[in-house]
Amino acid sequence: MKRTVFFISDRTGITAEMLGQSLLSQFEEADFEKISLPFIDNEKKAIQAKEKIDTAAAKGEQPIVFDTIVTPEIRKIIMESKGLVLDFFHTFIGPLENALGLKSGFRVGKTHSYDEKGEYDSRIDAINFALNNDDGATTRYYDKAELILVGVSRCGKTPTSLYMAMQFGIHVANYPFTEEDMEDLKLPAMLKKYKDKLFGLTINAQRLHEIRTERRANSQYASLKQCQLEIREVEALMRKERIPYITTTSKSIEEIATKIMVKSGLKRISF
Amino acid sequence: MKRTVFFISDRTGITAEMLGQSLLSQFEEADFEKISLPFIDNEKKAIQAKEKIDTAAAKGEQPIVFDTIVTPEIRKIIMESKGLVLDFFHTFIGPLENALGLKSGFRVGKTHSYDEKGEYDSRIDAINFALNNDDGATTRYYDKAELILVGVSRCGKTPTSLYMAMQFGIHVANYPFTEEDMEDLKLPAMLKKYKDKLFGLTINAQRLHEIRTERRANSQYASLKQCQLEIREVEALMRKERIPYITTTSKSIEEIATKIMVKSGLKRISF
Repeated sequence: MKRTVFFISDRTGITAEMLGQSLLSQFEEADFEKISLPFIDNEKKAIQAKEKIDTAAAKGEQPIVFDTIVTPEIRKIIMESKGLVLDFFHTFIGPLENALGLKSGFRVGKTHSYDEKGEYDSRIDAINFALNNDDGATTRYYDKAELILVGVSRCGKTPTSLYMAMQFGIHVANYPFTEEDMEDLKLPAMLKKYKDKLFGLTINAQRLHEIRTERRANSQYASLKQCQLEIREVEALMRKERIPYITTTSKSIEEIATKIMVKSGLKRISF
Repeated sequence: MKRTVFFISDRTGITAEMLGQSLLSQFEEADFEKISLPFIDNEKKAIQAKEKIDTAAAKGEQPIVFDTIVTPEIRKIIMESKGLVLDFFHTFIGPLENALGLKSGFRVGKTHSYDEKGEYDSRIDAINFALNNDDGATTRYYDKAELILVGVSRCGKTPTSLYMAMQFGIHVANYPFTEEDMEDLKLPAMLKKYKDKLFGLTINAQRLHEIRTERRANSQYASLKQCQLEIREVEALMRKERIPYITTTSKSIEEIATKIMVKSGLKRISF
């Protein structure tokens, strides 16, 4: 029987899910039934959540509850449940109050909040920039890009650009190297101007072959030979031009994006 | 003088940043200098991180350190720093081990890991779906959509689709209601077929006017009158057709996406 796990928050619950998930992933042998209860922002909803926890407790083993509830009254109700409550917010707010010599306002919804320092607009702006400057669609706005990702087709440029826009508010364009670019190991002229903004992505040839095969099976584009050739030439070009690059093979979008932030020294607009 | 805050992790540090940020946001009167140190995955890097914390401590008030470090050896080095270390991982792993009657493997990088249950591929697949089915570009693949967002131009459909793909692995198409659709309060024929998948976004007219003005100042498209008209008609259409909808005004992308998940009852592919 699966152990029930609840993620409870008075907001989206995304933080509770992420930290809870990283803790649960340490127990590979265990099997969990995961239930998210976001927006538990009044006592009535809290009592309903408590009842769900207690029902799960009555059926089997003690449920695990990960929560990031800010409001003390709501937290109190969840704490009275029969679950093991791991309280991500209140565990740390006390020590933090002491260190800062300040009192917490217990204000809900300060993260991801809408108009904090205009961060929201900046992120939307960055997402639109990524979409409009995707896949070499246009190079007209490269002066406004903070970063230009380069690499062969299907190495991970688009998801990485979008994630960096969404998470860090960075303006990222991306440009696919085509065979013409690679033939004589030369950077296209319009990229030369922005060489300091270039960052390369590369990928294992076998993996690229698999990804391209899903899109266009049995094409030359997807053939292992073509993938090997393109990657060899692009990597040679990037080394020659001293463009920093990382491999995307076996990395999640989050890892690729964070590694680029570290290596490029870019400053995020939002935290 | 700003208080220095470190976010330290042996992986991306995104979880440490999110929870740390939600704690810090409770202290509006305080001013923080935030430094992320991701991928602190060996003792040498840990010692360098400790030195950075100690340098900040020597210059002013005690730095705050939020960490999600899994490896005990690395954690030990950070704990010896002069910062106030709030340890998001180890604080909870003990109680969790007791509750589960299992030992943690202390394995780094199990969240956002690459090939866990094929979740990574599913997310990339969902992102590509959102891109290919953005803004009514095509309606040919609506049978494969799990959700079709509808609403007026610039109400938040695209960022929401992309976020839902990236965070929850959901296949989301989006379709913009144009004036022709609204004129006689009728759903376009190709949407009728998929009525159960429709979810509406709406927005405050003044806010829409501001957003559209940034794109096309002084156009009819951006005029307050046009925005009011479109929103009135679209909301009437959604009410008439009983399409569930929420407003995006004053909501972050995370909030919009999570509210849609709750209201639509969609199941995410990944946690």
